Amino acid sequence: MIRAVLSLLLVLGAISSAFSAGDKKYIPKTGKRIPQTLSRGWGDQLIWAQTYEEALYWSRSKNKPLLVLFHLEDCPHSQAMRKVIANSYEIQKILDEEFIVLNLVYETTDKNLTPDGQYVPRFLFVDPSMTVRADIVGPYGNRLYAYEPQDLDVLKKSMEKAKKLLKVEL
Amino acid sequence: MIRAVLSLLLVLGAISSAFSAGDKKYIPKTGKRIPQTLSRGWGDQLIWAQTYEEALYWSRSKNKPLLVLFHLEDCPHSQAMRKVIANSYEIQKILDEEFIVLNLVYETTDKNLTPDGQYVPRFLFVDPSMTVRADIVGPYGNRLYAYEPQDLDVLKKSMEKAKKLLKVEL
Repeated sequence: MIRAVLSLLLVLGAISSAFSAGDKKYIPKTGKRIPQTLSRGWGDQLIWAQTYEEALYWSRSKNKPLLVLFHLEDCPHSQAMRKVIANSYEIQKILDEEFIVLNLVYETTDKNLTPDGQYVPRFLFVDPSMTVRADIVGPYGNRLYAYEPQDLDVLKKSMEKAKKLLKVEL
Repeated sequence: MIRAVLSLLLVLGAISSAFSAGDKKYIPKTGKRIPQTLSRGWGDQLIWAQTYEEALYWSRSKNKPLLVLFHLEDCPHSQAMRKVIANSYEIQKILDEEFIVLNLVYETTDKNLTPDGQYVPRFLFVDPSMTVRADIVGPYGNRLYAYEPQDLDVLKKSMEKAKKLLKVEL
């Protein structure tokens, strides 16, 4: 009887070690993390470009304007804007169907994306001809490309402007 | 009795429309999408930089080497490498604790990241001094920065080399 129990224990031990050896998943010492999303909370249903280069390529090839959205995870103004944009059915739908979207928490090396300096949140539109639309601005004179949560209608107007593509004769 | 039922229906109708008006979540016509992750399957527990600029900044400020991993979602070689790397406890742990990591599905404009051309998968190490380590190569003469699933030990040796930081006297 004791031998039978021992054999059973050995078999069980072999099974459990076989399972743990190959399939040991890495978990950081600090605990399991929630996978990072490319949306960073600005709309999980949108297809986000990862980099400016990728976004420009998509914009050109699909002939859709690009919205580049600079923000910071810890900035309360960014968080407030993120909340209203992520929860706006209308804006999400327009962005999904008619725009290429990119959100960045880090500045690029392209100076055209900082027409009046680096700040967040900052919304810049780029034409499929790869022209940064510095003419499409929000309601604030000191930070031309900033929008606050109460400015959704201004943002929608800016999006309308961006959709009227620049005619470029090549 | 009929009036009571009608009132009840009106109240129920009002409640349901109140719910649907404010909280209507955007779902694309093509159906609900799975949110994109920054890991793109290469290790959900790692903290991935989004862009090369961000990765360089982290590498410099944390004094850790950077691994830039070029791949494509539809490339079978990328998929095979992704599987073995995502499932390797050892590689995930080293990458998490001792490296800055960036995976890109699109080329950057920096020519230093294409020492022998553009192909995927391609593994390039960058020193915290912002020097691309073109000297750290895999086992293939025709594609110096490529590794196949059976080359995990070579990749680990490359990672060891990258951890020996270049001494830069400024």
